[in-house]
Amino acid sequence: MSAPDRRSWLAGLIGQGVGPSLTPEMHEREAERQGLRYVYKVIEQAGGAVDAAHLEHLLGAAIELGYDGLNITHPVKQAMVPLVDETAPAVRAIGALNTIVIRDGRTTGHNTDVTGFKRSFTDGLPDVDRDRVVLLGAGGAGTAVAHALVDLGVRRLLVVDLDHERADQLAASLDDRSTDIEIVQPTAGWLRAAVGMATGLVNASPMGMAAHPGSPVPAEVLRPSLWVADIVYRPLHTTLLDAAAAAGCTVLTGAGMAVHQAADAFELITGRPADRAAMLRDFDELVATETSRSRNTTEKRNR
Amino acid sequence: MSAPDRRSWLAGLIGQGVGPSLTPEMHEREAERQGLRYVYKVIEQAGGAVDAAHLEHLLGAAIELGYDGLNITHPVKQAMVPLVDETAPAVRAIGALNTIVIRDGRTTGHNTDVTGFKRSFTDGLPDVDRDRVVLLGAGGAGTAVAHALVDLGVRRLLVVDLDHERADQLAASLDDRSTDIEIVQPTAGWLRAAVGMATGLVNASPMGMAAHPGSPVPAEVLRPSLWVADIVYRPLHTTLLDAAAAAGCTVLTGAGMAVHQAADAFELITGRPADRAAMLRDFDELVATETSRSRNTTEKRNR
Repeated sequence: MSAPDRRSWLAGLIGQGVGPSLTPEMHEREAERQGLRYVYKVIEQAGGAVDAAHLEHLLGAAIELGYDGLNITHPVKQAMVPLVDETAPAVRAIGALNTIVIRDGRTTGHNTDVTGFKRSFTDGLPDVDRDRVVLLGAGGAGTAVAHALVDLGVRRLLVVDLDHERADQLAASLDDRSTDIEIVQPTAGWLRAAVGMATGLVNASPMGMAAHPGSPVPAEVLRPSLWVADIVYRPLHTTLLDAAAAAGCTVLTGAGMAVHQAADAFELITGRPADRAAMLRDFDELVATETSRSRNTTEKRNR
Repeated sequence: MSAPDRRSWLAGLIGQGVGPSLTPEMHEREAERQGLRYVYKVIEQAGGAVDAAHLEHLLGAAIELGYDGLNITHPVKQAMVPLVDETAPAVRAIGALNTIVIRDGRTTGHNTDVTGFKRSFTDGLPDVDRDRVVLLGAGGAGTAVAHALVDLGVRRLLVVDLDHERADQLAASLDDRSTDIEIVQPTAGWLRAAVGMATGLVNASPMGMAAHPGSPVPAEVLRPSLWVADIVYRPLHTTLLDAAAAAGCTVLTGAGMAVHQAADAFELITGRPADRAAMLRDFDELVATETSRSRNTTEKRNR
């Protein structure tokens, strides 16, 4: 005797500061659309150093407690890699994962930041010149974006980061690729010259987020022949993108990467195709709700 | 900024041999009816001895991984009691729990076997004479039923079990109650005499389950003035209940207790009222599906 075959799905997000993430709501709405029983839980880790033993315990517990998949975010994307049974090639190259699929007690690591950015790029900037690209930021997100850009056929990639060591690590992770990689530190003169020669610019630094206001490049380097992508999505219309649009650039917001990384994770976890157009609409609505809430809060405070 | 207020619920069942349980499907269907995002996972424990350290780890992990509640079943209903932060009075009296509610990292133990049986009884046998009741079986289920019967106002309770020690424990757990409790070992002559003088009979032994076929009492002791309740629900119509119905007894199947323990747990976990009538219909349908599957399997095997 057995219960009916209808199964339910359980996923979660492990990281620090994950409470405001829109990913749980995106997953649960997509599942609802498909008529699935699906719950996505936020698993907040206390601040401070990452304890590998605790992560191992957490992953083992997730397996035992019926989790079908996990998203992994800052600051444990790297620490999780040695804990999974198998890894996708991109995870091995980058040394970071953001998705773990659990099947019959076995775990496989994936990186849908890479696939998510690629999908966003091919959808949003299908015809742009990929020859020479400046990438701002060589952290975890920057590394995923760099691998995506190489996969997308960028011939020359200039990586700009204040932290030379991690920029070098990024370059080393791309060692066996055909793209020509150069690392620079963002002195003002150099940056202007580099952007002046580039066909495209991607911001993968935190600059432009609510907590880091402003643009990572001066407005005068922006010109109509340059395309500009930002992976920041809070706000969607960053100071950089506003300036780029005003300067006549073709622009790509961070919405696509945010949605496609979630859609890719949903597909990996459930094995079912996601409705990406609907997920994009959900995302727009969620961001709009956030923005209006945030404005209301500000207005109330100002009274 | 924060995600929308719409929350999801996560519950699970910890025990041995829990795979065939109908409780997950009952919870998930009720949640679906209410438009809740709700997943109920089966957390099977390997056979053998219960390791208290593992249970403690499991409960801690469930809290960290976002569980809102747990059902607890054989063989860990007792072992979980010292691990929760607070306990309902029935749990302290019985020394066993079957439901743990998790709120803000704190755990409270409940026993919905007691409340479930009570509800089933008052719904199904509202007007029967509760004066003298014979209870067969002093295990975990029997103990919960005994407490329910005392709450229901039974004046004299005769507990029958081969294992005198656990029957004594049951009696001790009821020490401060007003009911007159007597313990007997089921020698045939005694049992007949006891049932002959009783107003009601409850089977809380495994006798009558598919793995323990047969009736716990001989058919000739059954008479129209005796009401008979069985807590076995696989099958719903046990040999005992069939014989009792044939003898003109008022009968109560195990469906009510199975459904009301689940409904009570659902209400404790979510804080929302359950639609018990709909849950009973679901249960009937699930049992019918099982029965027809089981029959089909048997027919296929016989070909």
